[in-house]
Amino acid sequence: MAADQARSNRRVVLKRYVTGFPTEDDMELVVAAAGAVTLAVPPGSRSVLVKNLYLSCDPYMRGRMSKHDDGSYVQDFVPGEVLTTFGVSKVVASGHPDLKEGDLVWGMTGCEEYTLITNPESLFKINHPELPLSYYTGVLGMPGLTAYFGFFEISKPKKGEYVLVSAASGAVGQLVGQLAKITGCYVVGSAGSDEKVNLLKSKFGFDEAFNYKKEQDLNAALKRCFPEGIDIYFENVGGAMLDAVLLNMRNHGRIAACGMISQYNLEQQEGVRNLLCVVAKRIRMEGFIIMDHFGAYGKFEEEMVGHIKEGKIAYVEDVVEGLEKLPEALIGLFHGRNVGKQLVAVARE
Amino acid sequence: MAADQARSNRRVVLKRYVTGFPTEDDMELVVAAAGAVTLAVPPGSRSVLVKNLYLSCDPYMRGRMSKHDDGSYVQDFVPGEVLTTFGVSKVVASGHPDLKEGDLVWGMTGCEEYTLITNPESLFKINHPELPLSYYTGVLGMPGLTAYFGFFEISKPKKGEYVLVSAASGAVGQLVGQLAKITGCYVVGSAGSDEKVNLLKSKFGFDEAFNYKKEQDLNAALKRCFPEGIDIYFENVGGAMLDAVLLNMRNHGRIAACGMISQYNLEQQEGVRNLLCVVAKRIRMEGFIIMDHFGAYGKFEEEMVGHIKEGKIAYVEDVVEGLEKLPEALIGLFHGRNVGKQLVAVARE
Ligand SMILES: NC(=O)c1ccc[n+]([C@@H]2O[C@H](COP(=O)([O-])OP(=O)(O)OC[C@H]3O[C@@H](n4cnc5c(N)ncnc54)[C@H](OP(=O)(O)O)[C@@H]3O)[C@@H](O)[C@H]2O)c1
Ligand SMILES: NC(=O)c1ccc[n+]([C@@H]2O[C@H](COP(=O)([O-])OP(=O)(O)OC[C@H]3O[C@@H](n4cnc5c(N)ncnc54)[C@H](OP(=O)(O)O)[C@@H]3O)[C@@H](O)[C@H]2O)c1
Repeated sequence: MAADQARSNRRVVLKRYVTGFPTEDDMELVVAAAGAVTLAVPPGSRSVLVKNLYLSCDPYMRGRMSKHDDGSYVQDFVPGEVLTTFGVSKVVASGHPDLKEGDLVWGMTGCEEYTLITNPESLFKINHPELPLSYYTGVLGMPGLTAYFGFFEISKPKKGEYVLVSAASGAVGQLVGQLAKITGCYVVGSAGSDEKVNLLKSKFGFDEAFNYKKEQDLNAALKRCFPEGIDIYFENVGGAMLDAVLLNMRNHGRIAACGMISQYNLEQQEGVRNLLCVVAKRIRMEGFIIMDHFGAYGKFEEEMVGHIKEGKIAYVEDVVEGLEKLPEALIGLFHGRNVGKQLVAVARE
Repeated sequence: MAADQARSNRRVVLKRYVTGFPTEDDMELVVAAAGAVTLAVPPGSRSVLVKNLYLSCDPYMRGRMSKHDDGSYVQDFVPGEVLTTFGVSKVVASGHPDLKEGDLVWGMTGCEEYTLITNPESLFKINHPELPLSYYTGVLGMPGLTAYFGFFEISKPKKGEYVLVSAASGAVGQLVGQLAKITGCYVVGSAGSDEKVNLLKSKFGFDEAFNYKKEQDLNAALKRCFPEGIDIYFENVGGAMLDAVLLNMRNHGRIAACGMISQYNLEQQEGVRNLLCVVAKRIRMEGFIIMDHFGAYGKFEEEMVGHIKEGKIAYVEDVVEGLEKLPEALIGLFHGRNVGKQLVAVARE
């Protein structure tokens, strides 16, 4: 393919800022006319042109769909412009000395077929192309590092401790649970369907799991699963689950505040009433944003690749085919439609 | 006074378990008949009989006035039995080799004139009787250590950081503010009266202070006081203040969860809605119970005595005279009636 060949580019753009639950109609697949992409980088630039293979659907993208007047930890999307996300891509043309045509990378890219990446320093080279490339949107990408860093660095687990993971069958949760088992912890997961609960126990080796949608009383469910209480809560959902967890934490417990997906689409957040437990039980609740810790990626990648190759970590992903499916897949996260890591296959090579 | 002299003993007992705000009527001053106290320890015991000089009124005592079926970090009071609290006492008779008649100690004792202390290992000797003895209920006692440990060990302050202290004129708050100034922080206090606000600025050297009862909008008050946001929140009150603070925390901020007095008398706790900020701003919120850290007392005492003698720490206490005033003084904490550290002078020597 000639490096200066011009072609069209399909892309998913934000139509408008979102309030409440996002719908497919908040996004739009637009086809930039033939000639929109020149398969070359502008002369003299250090940019990189990539072809996107796999695009990740992540819950935090919901936040970017709303307008934040006083800023957020990540830039808001702009109506009319292409969405961006973490993805696995192949370099088509490069102005950067460290990247060349054919290199496989993962990092922030556009929800489109081809993306001109103007800050290629943000990209990671894919060191293990012998594993499925899609893994670099999940177990070997941002969610994997989130599980690893959040569990080990924020929760500071010890062998034998009692661990609860919410949204446990998802991209992050399935890995946290398995890392906790590797560490010698007792691990319980909560998830939103019986199918997911089965997966947690049969595939990911959780000691126990429950379907939070079927529990009348989350406090009672936690008391049943944790008669001794919870040492570590890996928090992915917030709201009512967090409130019930606080009542069941043990002294000196830790809450790794990774996300609170149950709150992302609410115009007014739910109130959490049991925070006095933080004092009485000497709880540490700590938030983190994984983008701050990408420096830890190299060490993580090698360790996680090791676990995968030794069969110590199982991994389930939910792949939809075609860029046009991205809006539906993204929205599905907020209805629990994904089973495992949600991603979109845009192209296979 | 002969060591075996028998006499009466006035004591404050809990009348019944409390729900909602406590009232004077929940407690009772009873006079144990003449002969109730023998000014001697039982033969062969290692107990210590003390005469109580100063008794501390502390917010956490409210928790002990209710029944906790599944336990608490501290024992519930028992209806009909004497309340216990931290106090400054003089040894009257001792079965313990390390304590002798006339020694001055502080530690957990009864809300009464004389107390037989069966675990004298829990008592601290008073090393600086040249300072007012009452200080050992406050700046040199439990609340002082709370301020010191909570601020330095939990908040981990750095010079130049922005610090908010709630219940700022109280026993703990006034000290946190001054320790923060010594550390080179910018310090704002919130308190419940204009008199207290003045005290914060004129006596304790806070950079700014506000009367939270007069603010229509706590979020706006915090924005006014902290245009750059808050690095450290020393949390004494919980509820609406915590919710507003979360909106105004800076990235990587810390919340030392010392207490949440605004919630102690509520049958249903208020909901805190802005916890998503914990994730987005990478906040660490950490609770502690100072009784876990009494091992740090010796180092603290010497450092704090140094500050006091050098005039670097000012200290305001609110002393009521007479054991019979204890119920009123204790209840007053929950209405903000105390100005400074609340204590009761039971006897002067
Ligand atoms: N701090 C960071 O840097 C960072 C990085 C990555 C991810 N995260 C966070 O980690 C969490 C998990 O992310 P992920 O990528 O692994 O997503 P995921 O779990 O693969 O997908 C989202 C899942 O959340 C659950 N969910 C949706 N709405 C819910 C609700 N109202 N109540 C409870 N559960 C609900 C659904 O599972 P069920 O069927 O079980 O309900 C859904 O499948 C999210 O909160 C995300 O924002 C944070
Ligand atoms: N974690 C621990 O080990 C530990 C140890 C000691 C103390 N503490 C906690 O530290 C905090 C301060 O204790 P302290 O001994 O220094 O008490 P204090 O501040 O001397 O006295 C209590 C003060 O709390 C304020 N207050 C009462 N009700 C309130 C409400 N509804 N909203 C806001 N403020 C209210 C009042 O001041 P205003 O006039 O300003 O409202 C009152 O004067 C308490 O929460 C206590 O439980 C914790």
